[in-house]
Amino acid sequence: MAKSPEVEHPNKAIAWAARDSSGQLSPLNFSRRATGEKDVTFKVLYCGICHSDLHMLKNEWGTSTYPLVPGHEIVGVVTEVGNKVQKFKVGDKVGVGCMVGSCHSCDNCANHLENYCPKMILTYAAKYYDGTTTYGGYSNIMVSDEHFVVRIPDNLPLDAAAPLLCAGITVYSPLKFYGLDKPVISTSPNKKKEALEHLGADSFLVSKDQDQMQAAQGTLDGIIDTVSAQHPLLPLIGLLKTQGKLVMVGAPEKPLELPIFPLLMGRKLVGGSCIGGMKETQEMIDFAAKHNIAADIEVIPIDYVNTAMERLLKADVRYRFVIDIENTLKSNN
Amino acid sequence: MAKSPEVEHPNKAIAWAARDSSGQLSPLNFSRRATGEKDVTFKVLYCGICHSDLHMLKNEWGTSTYPLVPGHEIVGVVTEVGNKVQKFKVGDKVGVGCMVGSCHSCDNCANHLENYCPKMILTYAAKYYDGTTTYGGYSNIMVSDEHFVVRIPDNLPLDAAAPLLCAGITVYSPLKFYGLDKPVISTSPNKKKEALEHLGADSFLVSKDQDQMQAAQGTLDGIIDTVSAQHPLLPLIGLLKTQGKLVMVGAPEKPLELPIFPLLMGRKLVGGSCIGGMKETQEMIDFAAKHNIAADIEVIPIDYVNTAMERLLKADVRYRFVIDIENTLKSNN
Repeated sequence: MAKSPEVEHPNKAIAWAARDSSGQLSPLNFSRRATGEKDVTFKVLYCGICHSDLHMLKNEWGTSTYPLVPGHEIVGVVTEVGNKVQKFKVGDKVGVGCMVGSCHSCDNCANHLENYCPKMILTYAAKYYDGTTTYGGYSNIMVSDEHFVVRIPDNLPLDAAAPLLCAGITVYSPLKFYGLDKPVISTSPNKKKEALEHLGADSFLVSKDQDQMQAAQGTLDGIIDTVSAQHPLLPLIGLLKTQGKLVMVGAPEKPLELPIFPLLMGRKLVGGSCIGGMKETQEMIDFAAKHNIAADIEVIPIDYVNTAMERLLKADVRYRFVIDIENTLKSNN
Repeated sequence: MAKSPEVEHPNKAIAWAARDSSGQLSPLNFSRRATGEKDVTFKVLYCGICHSDLHMLKNEWGTSTYPLVPGHEIVGVVTEVGNKVQKFKVGDKVGVGCMVGSCHSCDNCANHLENYCPKMILTYAAKYYDGTTTYGGYSNIMVSDEHFVVRIPDNLPLDAAAPLLCAGITVYSPLKFYGLDKPVISTSPNKKKEALEHLGADSFLVSKDQDQMQAAQGTLDGIIDTVSAQHPLLPLIGLLKTQGKLVMVGAPEKPLELPIFPLLMGRKLVGGSCIGGMKETQEMIDFAAKHNIAADIEVIPIDYVNTAMERLLKADVRYRFVIDIENTLKSNN
């Protein structure tokens, strides 16, 4: 029989976890493995909240196991490294994103695409090599094989760097792979001023405004579609130029309707992309640091997390919640 | 009031046409325009039957006008050229495919992609520059601006070359654009022997065979999907490797269900492609001639065309019907 999360590993740890598909989070005592020879152990300082956390908490993708500790935008400071670790030392600022393992022998792994490895191990609610369950970053300690750890350059604020580890790489990778520019489309007109003045967008298009959408038909080289709810693709395909690309990075639960004629008539494509490989993730973080790019965030205490989830469901956040783990996650005893 | 098809132009012509959405074809007397200064007029020898003819006859795409003379795989011999025609002379073997006009000023036209020009004029059931309706190749005479005429090299048999003008370019263009190899998948197990021994396929996969499909999961770089009926995309996406490409060239009437997760998890794409530009069409014809590639065809007389349509609907043809226009289309008077 499998040991309980609290005693299966030697190192005591604390977290907030969901116990069932209600998705309600509450404190959990659990344990982390001892630092293996290739492992990096770090004290978690911040963890971003991703929309996938919401899906996973409620088992909306059917793959959740409980207790479930979410969080795959995890940053912190190294406290211990294994004797074969080459890239990191105690005191380094590091991060872990969506995955903590892969097979290291398939074509995808050989091509730095661990994110597409059939045996890729997710950061939480997955089975690790040793058969134990993985737990995410809504917790005080993280342990990961150094291959899945990235370095956070000193000039990046750690809280605002956290969302880069999932949200950032998720759009960076397809922009590069599909050779796209960066148009900005939003369902929310009240984001327009901010997008233009603060985020540096060249223009802003409200997808619910029929006139704006009509005027923009056939004008875009590409679209990164981050929406994970059901939504029509036809209006988006209509915005594309000939040979335009609609890249899906959100994951609606049910199939979407794909009209074929508009694809044919403009040699357009609908492609997918899922986070990015470790090499590219480090490249993205370094790019962000070089250009002083970080996420716009709202830092919250851990005991606000259930409220944050409710607000996230209503898209009521500019633009990412980040949990202050270090200062607000305290021992439950 | 618009003149009747029989008298709107000076040159008498004969054809078989559908009069309504029953799609039944019968003889029609109509007329063709006089040879304009950039026009090539040719005697039609053969015309291929395309599955789109079937859709158009029955107005299944909602764009048909009647009388409707189908046919966009048209080959013949030049009988007259306008005084500004540069590429062709009387006696040349020529062909016309799916289009007879475009704007010649948009980005697509400038890039030899007349097939994606928003003002592209289809070979039949469309409005020509002069406002008259275009009529296809199930007829004895064809007139076209030389820009939309291709040369058929001498070593290609004219009857077997006809299907290259639509079916040929429709698969040639995406194979090049999407950088694909040429796997062979079919719903019909009885095509297997022929595909392997006669067509030079490396392997053959029956899409209705669950075991074969399961064994082939994740093995293909790309698929050209020529099916214009409703069909599930999920099994085809499953056959693709990471970064694999499913290219649609058939045009189902209703949207297909597109599962998003499988696209994301393998950075796969579903793209469209529609015939090809005139430059590429000539390149494809020259390639076919150089390598002695032509279509496998069943030559039929014009009065068999309604039966051929019924057989086509049942996929009962290896692999393309071609109408012997010269020897079987006779004056109705």
